[in-house]
Amino acid sequence: MQIEKYKIDDFNQQQEQEHKRKFEVLASSLNNVEGVLQKLVDFQIGIPSWALGTGGTRFGRFSGSGEPRSLEEKIEDVGLLHALNQSSGAISLHIPWDIPQDYKAIKALAAQHGLKFDAVNSNTFQDQPDQKQSYKFGSMQHVDKAIRRQAVEHNIEVIRHGIELGSDALTVWLSDGSSFPGQLNFRNAFENTLESLQEVYAALPDDWKVFVEYKAFEPNFYSMTVGDWGQSLLFANKLGPKAYTLVDLGHHLPNANIEQIVSLLLMEGKLGGFHFNDSKYGDDDLTTGSIKPYQLFLIFNSLVDGMDARGMDHATSLAWMIDASHNVKDPLEDLLQSVEAIMIAYAQALLVDQQGLKGAQQENDVVRCQEILQEAFRTDVRPIVAEARLRTGAALRPLQLFRELKVRENLINERGLKTVATGL
Amino acid sequence: MQIEKYKIDDFNQQQEQEHKRKFEVLASSLNNVEGVLQKLVDFQIGIPSWALGTGGTRFGRFSGSGEPRSLEEKIEDVGLLHALNQSSGAISLHIPWDIPQDYKAIKALAAQHGLKFDAVNSNTFQDQPDQKQSYKFGSMQHVDKAIRRQAVEHNIEVIRHGIELGSDALTVWLSDGSSFPGQLNFRNAFENTLESLQEVYAALPDDWKVFVEYKAFEPNFYSMTVGDWGQSLLFANKLGPKAYTLVDLGHHLPNANIEQIVSLLLMEGKLGGFHFNDSKYGDDDLTTGSIKPYQLFLIFNSLVDGMDARGMDHATSLAWMIDASHNVKDPLEDLLQSVEAIMIAYAQALLVDQQGLKGAQQENDVVRCQEILQEAFRTDVRPIVAEARLRTGAALRPLQLFRELKVRENLINERGLKTVATGL
Amino acid sequence: MQIEKYKIDDFNQQQEQEHKRKFEVLASSLNNVEGVLQKLVDFQIGIPSWALGTGGTRFGRFSGSGEPRSLEEKIEDVGLLHALNQSSGAISLHIPWDIPQDYKAIKALAAQHGLKFDAVNSNTFQDQPDQKQSYKFGSMQHVDKAIRRQAVEHNIEVIRHGIELGSDALTVWLSDGSSFPGQLNFRNAFENTLESLQEVYAALPDDWKVFVEYKAFEPNFYSMTVGDWGQSLLFANKLGPKAYTLVDLGHHLPNANIEQIVSLLLMEGKLGGFHFNDSKYGDDDLTTGSIKPYQLFLIFNSLVDGMDARGMDHATSLAWMIDASHNVKDPLEDLLQSVEAIMIAYAQALLVDQQGLKGAQQENDVVRCQEILQEAFRTDVRPIVAEARLRTGAALRPLQLFRELKVRENLINERGLKTVATGL
Amino acid sequence: MQIEKYKIDDFNQQQEQEHKRKFEVLASSLNNVEGVLQKLVDFQIGIPSWALGTGGTRFGRFSGSGEPRSLEEKIEDVGLLHALNQSSGAISLHIPWDIPQDYKAIKALAAQHGLKFDAVNSNTFQDQPDQKQSYKFGSMQHVDKAIRRQAVEHNIEVIRHGIELGSDALTVWLSDGSSFPGQLNFRNAFENTLESLQEVYAALPDDWKVFVEYKAFEPNFYSMTVGDWGQSLLFANKLGPKAYTLVDLGHHLPNANIEQIVSLLLMEGKLGGFHFNDSKYGDDDLTTGSIKPYQLFLIFNSLVDGMDARGMDHATSLAWMIDASHNVKDPLEDLLQSVEAIMIAYAQALLVDQQGLKGAQQENDVVRCQEILQEAFRTDVRPIVAEARLRTGAALRPLQLFRELKVRENLINERGLKTVATGL
Repeated sequence: MQIEKYKIDDFNQQQEQEHKRKFEVLASSLNNVEGVLQKLVDFQIGIPSWALGTGGTRFGRFSGSGEPRSLEEKIEDVGLLHALNQSSGAISLHIPWDIPQDYKAIKALAAQHGLKFDAVNSNTFQDQPDQKQSYKFGSMQHVDKAIRRQAVEHNIEVIRHGIELGSDALTVWLSDGSSFPGQLNFRNAFENTLESLQEVYAALPDDWKVFVEYKAFEPNFYSMTVGDWGQSLLFANKLGPKAYTLVDLGHHLPNANIEQIVSLLLMEGKLGGFHFNDSKYGDDDLTTGSIKPYQLFLIFNSLVDGMDARGMDHATSLAWMIDASHNVKDPLEDLLQSVEAIMIAYAQALLVDQQGLKGAQQENDVVRCQEILQEAFRTDVRPIVAEARLRTGAALRPLQLFRELKVRENLINERGLKTVATGL
Repeated sequence: MQIEKYKIDDFNQQQEQEHKRKFEVLASSLNNVEGVLQKLVDFQIGIPSWALGTGGTRFGRFSGSGEPRSLEEKIEDVGLLHALNQSSGAISLHIPWDIPQDYKAIKALAAQHGLKFDAVNSNTFQDQPDQKQSYKFGSMQHVDKAIRRQAVEHNIEVIRHGIELGSDALTVWLSDGSSFPGQLNFRNAFENTLESLQEVYAALPDDWKVFVEYKAFEPNFYSMTVGDWGQSLLFANKLGPKAYTLVDLGHHLPNANIEQIVSLLLMEGKLGGFHFNDSKYGDDDLTTGSIKPYQLFLIFNSLVDGMDARGMDHATSLAWMIDASHNVKDPLEDLLQSVEAIMIAYAQALLVDQQGLKGAQQENDVVRCQEILQEAFRTDVRPIVAEARLRTGAALRPLQLFRELKVRENLINERGLKTVATGL
Repeated sequence: MQIEKYKIDDFNQQQEQEHKRKFEVLASSLNNVEGVLQKLVDFQIGIPSWALGTGGTRFGRFSGSGEPRSLEEKIEDVGLLHALNQSSGAISLHIPWDIPQDYKAIKALAAQHGLKFDAVNSNTFQDQPDQKQSYKFGSMQHVDKAIRRQAVEHNIEVIRHGIELGSDALTVWLSDGSSFPGQLNFRNAFENTLESLQEVYAALPDDWKVFVEYKAFEPNFYSMTVGDWGQSLLFANKLGPKAYTLVDLGHHLPNANIEQIVSLLLMEGKLGGFHFNDSKYGDDDLTTGSIKPYQLFLIFNSLVDGMDARGMDHATSLAWMIDASHNVKDPLEDLLQSVEAIMIAYAQALLVDQQGLKGAQQENDVVRCQEILQEAFRTDVRPIVAEARLRTGAALRPLQLFRELKVRENLINERGLKTVATGL
Repeated sequence: MQIEKYKIDDFNQQQEQEHKRKFEVLASSLNNVEGVLQKLVDFQIGIPSWALGTGGTRFGRFSGSGEPRSLEEKIEDVGLLHALNQSSGAISLHIPWDIPQDYKAIKALAAQHGLKFDAVNSNTFQDQPDQKQSYKFGSMQHVDKAIRRQAVEHNIEVIRHGIELGSDALTVWLSDGSSFPGQLNFRNAFENTLESLQEVYAALPDDWKVFVEYKAFEPNFYSMTVGDWGQSLLFANKLGPKAYTLVDLGHHLPNANIEQIVSLLLMEGKLGGFHFNDSKYGDDDLTTGSIKPYQLFLIFNSLVDGMDARGMDHATSLAWMIDASHNVKDPLEDLLQSVEAIMIAYAQALLVDQQGLKGAQQENDVVRCQEILQEAFRTDVRPIVAEARLRTGAALRPLQLFRELKVRENLINERGLKTVATGL
């Protein structure tokens, strides 16, 4: 299924008058709305190929319908999102769930939807049917060199796929760790992992980056070998200038101050990218902004401040990606909600009176500091986000149009009621 | 110091045009704005007498200036807040920090400021200079009946003060618990506490309530004898119809779902009141809404739904109070920010399309459920809250006027630079 | 495979001299060792049928070998454990994973291994292939009465199986809850769940119990409908005298004081049973005692104190069960370690000088309280636990014998290398 | 008060027979007991001068009796502890609470008690009466250079005191941070702090170390400027070879894996020392080993493994110190319990079959790994710890002798009932 341009235009025309009224009232009380709009237009969020189907927990999975059955259909899905919001212009593949057969055809298909290929992702946390060695006791950290070697080679293979597709970054996430005290020697695990990562690093093209993702805990784990930003940063520093830390919002201990971590990683020049989602208790992989929207805003405030301090281009310097699991919502609707929440938080952060804030900080006027942040956060920026979409030909209200066009019903007609996407 | 009415009117006149423009745009897209406005007008938040001075941690306290030196000056302070926002029409006293000498004069003074006396608070977590028995090892839970008796009598004395002042509720917070495994027998501690509370309960006037506040943890504690809502509810049920649970937002284990607790306590008819504040890690007693404004909104959503389901009057059925500590902000400014955040969350909750939400829930349309909540939360309701203030003669922007009128400077002139309020 | 009695005797004979030496030194410095030994002999821990195969996380599962392929083989597995330690004399079945075809044969097989049938477990957190309605949006709490009805009927069917097998309790665990704010109305969810549980309760035989298990969080959840002991106790109280709360050690928010919860539930006469395991971060389902052995001891200290205060028989008044997942260990070895840790904690708790403790508590001699608890905990009670085994014909060192007899290798020979047990 | 040597000898003689019996049984089943004993004899734990009086929380403080009124009496107190256990041979001073007037006399007094001076501690988290600038908004991080300068100079003054006393390390703990989002810019706070630390570092003698202590949270804080080991390590690396990270057991987010952090810091050559205590919820400063003794053992296991891997001397390479608050126990008794718990954990870690563990790890025999650790932990090593004391002339049971000699009663006679030690 594809969404014809005229349908979006028709939809927008019906809504435009009301939209313009709200936008103009808002714009009239803000400075530099055009600058904000341009930044919103440029900002693109990568969609992970594994988030297009219904996810599950370790207990149950309740599948959806009309899910993509192939890499081609996954690209089609992201294309639908991008057509609706013009903010989802990239797809992030996961090997081996998305091994392309014909690179040229795949690239052409993606280009047709206006999509580029974001960071490619390796998988050494599951055993594949034809796999020689098992990752039961870890991959890059494993005590057995042969298993580490297999994991390294898999990563190198992933890089090769990425090169063919025009990607320029590799994301490594390890569920390596231990379930029990004594199971591994933390130092050896770190050193083995470092050695493995160095071998992968050596295979990176010059213009590539590698993202070392950290995670504080997993069910059934007692320790994680890349467990926090401190460990990830240690790896990134030991690896070299192409290595960066990747922050996933759900991968922290309770109450962690993520906005501070982000600020420090930017200060060190080692923040590589983001996995957006939200959580109540652990790594819940819920819709971004659905639980803690103010935290999301504060993170974007750290990002904007930190990127500007280093003269980094917002749209291209970091890898922006969603990493969520959709268990009780339609995956495409869920992704539309996530992208909207990200754009809102970004727009609010762009509206922060940075100069006023610096002044208030300089005077330790804590009340004013809070007023300035809340002024931005309490502003209803949805008309600005919508206006950015309008200017790029996207829908003023993507989710509403998704439903009006009966996109999922169409996909079910095309693909069937009982399809299960590859992936988690 | 008192704020003359004309100063507020002058201030409002300057702002009114801009305010009206924003309010009208907003009102035109909402239903039942008048109903919402009336509810906001009626809603009053109690100010605790101990929050009018600068607080501290166990490490340091960095005092402020112009703090109230007496109960009279505390009432004056709350009067200033209420003049500015007309939403702080009650004061909650803490005995023995605020023992009134002349009830009649104190009542007259409060009335002059338009204030009533909220729940009175007892203190059995500190030893007073003239106290016979020590609370070092607990008060209502103590193994020694004589010490329990002293704590009970103190509470009864607090009730007597409250009766004289026209209060109609007693809040009991116990830092009773233990620092080490084995220090106490949990069952005996519960039973002793229950016996003590029963004796206090017996002394309650017929039209009074007693609030049993719970708290999950304190620095240097291993167990708390009223540690969670389950324990508080057990006490409240065993005590009788005048006993209720009081929820303090900072008194929970990490990640606790407070909005669910609130909903269930309302279901059981046992929610008595609220202590508003905010926190990042523990019982941080920070400005309400400064860390997790969406959680605050969700709690109000539970409150509105639950109170309406039982036909409870929003303004009078529950005891609404701030309980915060102001360490790096001017206490009065901090309280103005807290009240504003509470009014915003309440207004947003009132705007939730409850019927639409019920429909979406009935269909398990989770995407729509989220849209409905976020629609309300993302709306910039500040013009509505300001309009409610305008209609009651309060300031459109209380904090701004507080600063323009140089209230603190005036108080310093009156009271001196180095004053320390009694209390925490 | 079955372990012949003489093999155990041979093994014990080799070890007996050293064992006796240690036991006697220890026994000579303790009071009432015989009483402790008898309690240890009587204490039996149920083994869940789903813990006999290798578990997994939502990411990967790395299967083991020689896993039981049928209910008969599961009983055989528990029989092996029981032969080795004589402390695992019960099996807890999970429907529909273990639907017995021939009750009489199954009961005979169990009896042959000296096993009885513990609480039966229902499953409404997964959809079964032939199931009419889906539990995607909950089961007992569902907004749709038809789905609630299906869940109720499933539970009643589970009771019927249990009656046939001689079980006398039903454990209900619900992963009912919500993933997002607004998805459900907490009050309605509670009320629907209560109604469903009441229908199940009505179907309970007179001498049965129903255990309402609570859980604070699940990955991908925002709220749990039976989320803490307070909620579970509300249900149990509303249901009636046959309803009890079941405590699973991994089902709490971070830092929860479980030993206090246990004490209060016993005080209320509403503690029904236990699911033993251990955890570092969340519901990790690790080997009991592998992470926090002192907490396990403190829990048993609460249990011993609380059961004795009510004159409850330790062995029969509560349902004792392991609930763990074995991802990187041989499941049978893991269970042997769990049972050993439980027996050690129980023995230590039995050694606590309860009278001395009460005296120290009465004097608020906190130092002495701690000394008394630590005296028991620091004692190496393994010789006592071993002696209890020796007297019942079990192995002095079950795990060592398990390895010496090459039990797993034998099971692989019998069952094959690539077997996957039904269950999680 | 001083404890005459003969009193200890008399006490030991009464207990020696029973002790020897237990020690010999234990020693006969262990390897290399003599090596372990020597390590225990050499191991000394510093006592902080501020832990000799009764502490408090932000709510109340319930003072003890006979507390030291001067630095001299604090040294006397530590001398008493050291006489009893010969494991507390160092005192750690806190400036300005313990400013020595006469260095020579103080050094002579300490030497008389067999004590050396451990790391000196600076205090920039409280304002002193005569202080020019306030630390209300931070010290080393402050936006105002003058305030940073004052904090730096205070630290340099502390170094000067330390030099005079023969100390060779400075511990810096900052309660710098913020209470509200927006209050500070994380990057600027880090950079200001770094600049301040660099100025302090420049004043360090060549053979000194500086320890940068981190802490995840404080009541009333939203961010901490040295909030986790990653940040502390960043500072230590940027400062240079004399800078190290200091780990305080209570300064972590819930569930943090401290034993892994310790292992990685040792790997990086940047672990400087330890503040021992224990906690249930936050920074509770409870008696070491009173809540999570297995975690303490696992930490010592990481320490022994990590120090041995680098050929570090256990006794002298790291700064070992208690940092606790004694609110409901006699401070000296509490410290005796802490030292005992530390020695037990250290002895257990020394008993771990390191070679066997490495072998099991190499084979991923997770069951055996756990058995090996638990074998050491479950061993009752108290006779070994007591034997080490016997050999150094300390008491077999320090706490018992403390009570039998009525040490506190004597101190009350000497110092009075109502003394309050300087410090927290």
